[in-house]
Amino acid sequence: MSHVSAAQVNPKRTVQELKELRALTGDEHGAQRVAFTEKWLRARAFLRERLDALPVEQHQDAAGNHWATLKGDSERELLIGGHLDSVPNGGWLDGCLNVLAGLEVMRRVSEQYAGRPPVTLRLVDWADEEGARFGRSLYGSSAASGHLDVAEVSKLHDRDGVSLTDALAKVGVKLDNAPQARQELKNAAAYLELHIEQGPVLEGLGLPLGAVAGTVGVERHTLTFHGQAAHSGSTPMNVRKDAFLAAGKLAAEIYTIAGRHGGVCTIGSVKTLPGIVTSVVETCEITLDQRHLDAEKLAAMWRDAQEAAQRFAAEGGCAVTFGDIWNIGPILFNSELIGAAEASILELVPSTHRLPSGPLHDAAEVARSGVPTVMLFVQSLRGISHNKIEDTLEEHIELSVRALDRLTDRAIAWIGARPLQDG
Amino acid sequence: MSHVSAAQVNPKRTVQELKELRALTGDEHGAQRVAFTEKWLRARAFLRERLDALPVEQHQDAAGNHWATLKGDSERELLIGGHLDSVPNGGWLDGCLNVLAGLEVMRRVSEQYAGRPPVTLRLVDWADEEGARFGRSLYGSSAASGHLDVAEVSKLHDRDGVSLTDALAKVGVKLDNAPQARQELKNAAAYLELHIEQGPVLEGLGLPLGAVAGTVGVERHTLTFHGQAAHSGSTPMNVRKDAFLAAGKLAAEIYTIAGRHGGVCTIGSVKTLPGIVTSVVETCEITLDQRHLDAEKLAAMWRDAQEAAQRFAAEGGCAVTFGDIWNIGPILFNSELIGAAEASILELVPSTHRLPSGPLHDAAEVARSGVPTVMLFVQSLRGISHNKIEDTLEEHIELSVRALDRLTDRAIAWIGARPLQDG
Repeated sequence: MSHVSAAQVNPKRTVQELKELRALTGDEHGAQRVAFTEKWLRARAFLRERLDALPVEQHQDAAGNHWATLKGDSERELLIGGHLDSVPNGGWLDGCLNVLAGLEVMRRVSEQYAGRPPVTLRLVDWADEEGARFGRSLYGSSAASGHLDVAEVSKLHDRDGVSLTDALAKVGVKLDNAPQARQELKNAAAYLELHIEQGPVLEGLGLPLGAVAGTVGVERHTLTFHGQAAHSGSTPMNVRKDAFLAAGKLAAEIYTIAGRHGGVCTIGSVKTLPGIVTSVVETCEITLDQRHLDAEKLAAMWRDAQEAAQRFAAEGGCAVTFGDIWNIGPILFNSELIGAAEASILELVPSTHRLPSGPLHDAAEVARSGVPTVMLFVQSLRGISHNKIEDTLEEHIELSVRALDRLTDRAIAWIGARPLQDG
Repeated sequence: MSHVSAAQVNPKRTVQELKELRALTGDEHGAQRVAFTEKWLRARAFLRERLDALPVEQHQDAAGNHWATLKGDSERELLIGGHLDSVPNGGWLDGCLNVLAGLEVMRRVSEQYAGRPPVTLRLVDWADEEGARFGRSLYGSSAASGHLDVAEVSKLHDRDGVSLTDALAKVGVKLDNAPQARQELKNAAAYLELHIEQGPVLEGLGLPLGAVAGTVGVERHTLTFHGQAAHSGSTPMNVRKDAFLAAGKLAAEIYTIAGRHGGVCTIGSVKTLPGIVTSVVETCEITLDQRHLDAEKLAAMWRDAQEAAQRFAAEGGCAVTFGDIWNIGPILFNSELIGAAEASILELVPSTHRLPSGPLHDAAEVARSGVPTVMLFVQSLRGISHNKIEDTLEEHIELSVRALDRLTDRAIAWIGARPLQDG
């Protein structure tokens, strides 16, 4: 596929707008666009003003997502999404690169087709992807995908005691109506999302861009080792029931398990009771987060971890119990769109890499609602995000805007070539 | 040595008095004789009333220790010590067995010698051995031994904000004068202390009694592993700098180190930062408590632990730093008195065992002030103390009173046979 068109994206403008947004909504500690706050509203106004220059209809949906629609010849829609909200003290790219790159692509498409592309193109700014304030990530996209449990999230409060219900009301959203956002996806034929990788894989490979195969499944559990408190001075080593001895052995074992199956495993929190210098640890609770793009291998990793934990506990006269924190299955993206994403990248650079996304994204919600979906990743420096030092080379940001632009053309063509489906 | 005397100890009375004291000063959660509290004062009154029946002089010294003196033909003194104070929710034996067994022995000696033994016999109830309220153990005995730093302990407060100074004032002690307690030891020729083992060694050997070789030296440190926080989903295993991987490896390694040198090592507290389920551990701080009766082997254990920590840190791209919490050298008891203790035990049972004390005791303070010292241990069931389920078989309690009684006679004879020393 080749493009012959006078209209061109201007990726340098995207970099410029990212910097403007950073100045408008950040401070010396980083981005402060926490959902439903004053600075988040300022970011939305920044977006709205720029979209006002295009022949698009804009509205906030029933859940608080912001939509801009460039009407096309077909009602079938290509969606490009992202989120302007950030964690507190966040980075300058996470979420808003997606939106501002989508804005730039929308400008180009609008210009190229004189305001009337072959299919309808929509840009969505999802509300509260991060969940930083209320602890529930993917709020807006899950409302659109039909996976928001209103009864459950209506119980959520921020650390100041403000309820999600009240925070939404302040921005004109009635929580009870949020599930009506579902209708926004009824004509969606494909969904594209560009995101910084937030990991070190592309940097390690020396590649600016990659196509995302899907979001990994997650098994998140607590493992609690039960031993016997005993005086550190009077208890010989050979009679101890040391809960930390058992838990500590798992620290290395999870690397073996991850290596065996090709996923990732993380012990993120370790708590010891009584937790004093003069006592053998009676109880040691750890959290284990395991992720894999393959559901069967994910299940095998969790089985292996349980087996190892039981073995280590038994070796030291301890017991172990398991608790559930959260889990979700892998969500695979559309294979044809993945191919289109890779073809788009290869028009710009000599090599690409297909990788799973470890973090969840709004794209996962859209995908599991049945909309064919793909994501592009652009390299993150040092793999760091959710931090003011989050960064990506400007030349890579520019490449990512170009890649999204190429992918948009391929997706428009792909939608046009697909038979209409029921529903 | 044999005993021909009409006077006999009555160990069943000691068991009875222990039960009375438990009823008087405990509740459904265990012993509540925390130093300088109402229940501790009640325990002291209980002791004082019983001593009033004997021809002894009683007084509280400048630090708040309670002394009962049975004047002998010689001014040289045999001291028997213990502590009535307990931890909150403590056991019925820790500390008060020592005192009440000493009371019973004093009755027997007083009766046998018609109130005038060959050497002066003194019973001391040390104040605040446990340090449960102000975090400073061995308060009273360290004042007597000359190791109390008044300026330092004057800064101590309990969790309600009451200063040690004010708590002492309520029981008639002026903290500034506490070091004057030193004069109580000026004629001390030997010090005996009976204590429950608070460990599982004697139970494991099937022995009721043992002689204590000394109190172990302690090296107490923090080890802080420094890695890199990273997203649990987006960070491949092979690029992680996982502080818990390094710390966890030490869990098993300390068993190897303790085994190599014959001491004990304990990781009692583990803290992880950021300590969340979705992040690789950036910082992991552990406490390490190491104990050995041999100073050189203790130093080697700490060197080995540092070397292993550095190796584990380096293996995972982390660093480790070390912090001091506290340390004390081993304190060896008097070899002749250890021999006398073993001979006393062997008069009662076929076998004895010489063991170090892991926990510190008031005897350690007395010993390091230069007074020849020995301790007797009586078996603890399950090795548990500082807990309401702390227990010892009544027949073993009775044997322990008899053993202290025999040892008292041997110590009186030993003091009489020793040349007077300077100072």
